[in-house]
Amino acid sequence: MIYSGICRKPMSLSLSLQQRRKQLAQLFDDPVVLWSGKALSRNFPANRYPFRANSHFLYFAGLQLENAAIHLENGKLTLFMDNPPPAATLWHGEMATREQIANTIGADEAYPLKELATRITDIATIPVQDRVTHQEQCQLLGRDLPVAKALKGKDLDLAQAIVSIRLCHDENALAELKKASKVSVKAHKAGIRATLQAKTESEIRSAMEGVIIAHNMTCAYNSIVTVQGEVLHNEDYHNPLQSGDLILADVGAETDSGWASDITRTWAVSGKFSATQRDIYNVVLAAHDACIAKMRPGVEYRDIHLLAATVITGGLVDLGILKGNSADLVEQDAHALFFPHGIGHLLGLDVHDMEDLGDVAGYETGRSRSDRFGLGYLRLDRKLRPGMLVTIEPGFYQVPAILNNPEFRQKYQNTVNWERLAQFSDVRGIRIEDDVLITNNGTEVLTAELPNKIAEIEFLMAT
Amino acid sequence: MIYSGICRKPMSLSLSLQQRRKQLAQLFDDPVVLWSGKALSRNFPANRYPFRANSHFLYFAGLQLENAAIHLENGKLTLFMDNPPPAATLWHGEMATREQIANTIGADEAYPLKELATRITDIATIPVQDRVTHQEQCQLLGRDLPVAKALKGKDLDLAQAIVSIRLCHDENALAELKKASKVSVKAHKAGIRATLQAKTESEIRSAMEGVIIAHNMTCAYNSIVTVQGEVLHNEDYHNPLQSGDLILADVGAETDSGWASDITRTWAVSGKFSATQRDIYNVVLAAHDACIAKMRPGVEYRDIHLLAATVITGGLVDLGILKGNSADLVEQDAHALFFPHGIGHLLGLDVHDMEDLGDVAGYETGRSRSDRFGLGYLRLDRKLRPGMLVTIEPGFYQVPAILNNPEFRQKYQNTVNWERLAQFSDVRGIRIEDDVLITNNGTEVLTAELPNKIAEIEFLMAT
Repeated sequence: MIYSGICRKPMSLSLSLQQRRKQLAQLFDDPVVLWSGKALSRNFPANRYPFRANSHFLYFAGLQLENAAIHLENGKLTLFMDNPPPAATLWHGEMATREQIANTIGADEAYPLKELATRITDIATIPVQDRVTHQEQCQLLGRDLPVAKALKGKDLDLAQAIVSIRLCHDENALAELKKASKVSVKAHKAGIRATLQAKTESEIRSAMEGVIIAHNMTCAYNSIVTVQGEVLHNEDYHNPLQSGDLILADVGAETDSGWASDITRTWAVSGKFSATQRDIYNVVLAAHDACIAKMRPGVEYRDIHLLAATVITGGLVDLGILKGNSADLVEQDAHALFFPHGIGHLLGLDVHDMEDLGDVAGYETGRSRSDRFGLGYLRLDRKLRPGMLVTIEPGFYQVPAILNNPEFRQKYQNTVNWERLAQFSDVRGIRIEDDVLITNNGTEVLTAELPNKIAEIEFLMAT
Repeated sequence: MIYSGICRKPMSLSLSLQQRRKQLAQLFDDPVVLWSGKALSRNFPANRYPFRANSHFLYFAGLQLENAAIHLENGKLTLFMDNPPPAATLWHGEMATREQIANTIGADEAYPLKELATRITDIATIPVQDRVTHQEQCQLLGRDLPVAKALKGKDLDLAQAIVSIRLCHDENALAELKKASKVSVKAHKAGIRATLQAKTESEIRSAMEGVIIAHNMTCAYNSIVTVQGEVLHNEDYHNPLQSGDLILADVGAETDSGWASDITRTWAVSGKFSATQRDIYNVVLAAHDACIAKMRPGVEYRDIHLLAATVITGGLVDLGILKGNSADLVEQDAHALFFPHGIGHLLGLDVHDMEDLGDVAGYETGRSRSDRFGLGYLRLDRKLRPGMLVTIEPGFYQVPAILNNPEFRQKYQNTVNWERLAQFSDVRGIRIEDDVLITNNGTEVLTAELPNKIAEIEFLMAT
């Protein structure tokens, strides 16, 4: 599908779903069944984690229906789900019936779930995350179904067809994605503004997630809000804030129909970056800006990653932290000492869109992960196309597990000026992440309303 | 264990765990293995729900350890868990080793998880919630393990032994439970104070959960924050607030070691209860106060439920909504037309404590659920003992599924003054819930600091 780039009123859900089914029918002949999955319990059966439907199901069914399935064939949609039991109204109030839901999503037919058994022959499917439903899928199909990242045969063909549709967002998806970014931008502004009064990481997290909750959205992933920016997947929030700290916040909202956003900002707890923090921040920002300036249809995302690596190494050479020229340094993976992850990933219904399928979505057919230290963590290796939404998230981190690794110390002995680096000890982790939509002739940064220049962030903190 | 009632400095975690193990050894001879469980994924493997360890494991291990097991025998604790893989430090930073954790919790020995297979003979256990670990439990034990509410044989004996210990909280537990209530009280105050500026349910929810997040706690259960108080298990937050509405908020915090609180308040969106709202609220509050005044060791919790029913029916007779005398009305289950749930439940590591075991914890051996409409939803039927923590949560609701049920309309044709009831249409749902600790000679209301009188709530809203 070619993204029109023209902003029209988003079409109705049922029309939009119909269009998605038609696209699938053009790419895939066999009948398809997709399951939504079941809610998972926390510490006892009635205490459940908030339900999240499987994303492939959501893409074609539009609603977070629990324990439902859809059958897709030649653009026709059949819904399988049970009506709520009469006793449920006592506890849950009036709930939509199967017929009402079928009507909302434009299903051609609708049956109780047990009827699904009669429509299961020769179908292709994608397994869901929850183990109970996964086992039911296997049982109904009468065959083993591996986890979603290891699909084979017609299930893999189906996955590839769905990937090729979901890669480029349609208008309905974009409308939702923009809603999610808008709320995430507000959340980050609230976090920045709350900092001077906050004493702990968790208080900043509260200000940010509070905005997401107030807009009746959920977090698309577990927030990172930390003064230990060098811990890349940090989900602790107990640290007190100290005046020399930077705070790194990676927080994104998800709409009720499951569309995600993903933003990171880094700012100074005191309201003022130190000179060293400022220097490194501006290197990361330069990489961020250079990447976005280069992005357009036809450009390889891998080259955007390498561009970020080049700008970062160049900046670190200028600061006297690295020695040599940036092209050679990137060739030697020296960027990954400080920027060990990829420049970004697909964004859509999943914050790492379609990552349940392993690299099927992220890597163009025939490509696979590099074993290079400086490329192996790249989650996306495709040519950019209009309608793709990706994150751009360069960073700089002083990760002890990397910088104290004797092998790296040896290999990069003469590449890094370790004494100079020691002067930047107040820069533990910086990341700047925005959500970038590829348009017909360039990009649209969905999260552009959130400042990323130091002066603007410092101004925001003070107001 | 007899609760001392004297507030001393809580003992260290490892001493407290040791005491719990000793208690278990006195009640149960066979070796025991308890698993913590695994984190569950949301829409793709790396996007996980926040991990919550199994509560029985937590009670004896004290920490939220993922994918770990403990072996308990004669008061001895052996910990089984793997050290974090070296690569994990890149993404997760420095993590505690098995030895460090063993030291913190006072384990006698500690081994990698695979060693557990050598210590599994003849053990009793309780299955965890997550299906993957449950299947591993069955496989290791070489026997089928039903879900936790259907245990048999020595597993059931173990469950009963654990219940008899967990029923009455020790000092360490109480210290945690009080932390949770304190934060929940603050959350409710914030919700009440945010109301006059709020436009939607979700904005009030945000103010409340924001406090919980700011204190680095989690919600013990999915919050209820709704103008549709008559929908008992309402987890939607999309309704706009309208000036005649009551808002019912059932929100509770959980500490990082898993101890829960559970509070409900109901207040007027406009800041002022209407006359009808005031009348019914005061009936519910009278029931709440009467229950707490009657509670002490030796009292049957079932009688507390019936007392609430009596006060509520009496109040509704006074208001002209019910006809007859309250004793007869309760006998006829007329209270359940408006108060269809139980007066409360056990509270501890689970918000419905030990409800994974079905009614093993809630119902004294030999007792079972009543099939009476006005008693069947009671979750706790035991004599109160010092150290027990229970909720007291009377309510009044106009549930369409009950009040429009033709069978009930017929049965209570002459019991309810339906015309008079119609005058109270602005009272959709009211609940007042506090957390009540049984002491040696009465009660201590852990949530007493939160106002529940109309004048006090209205004052709080305006300040």
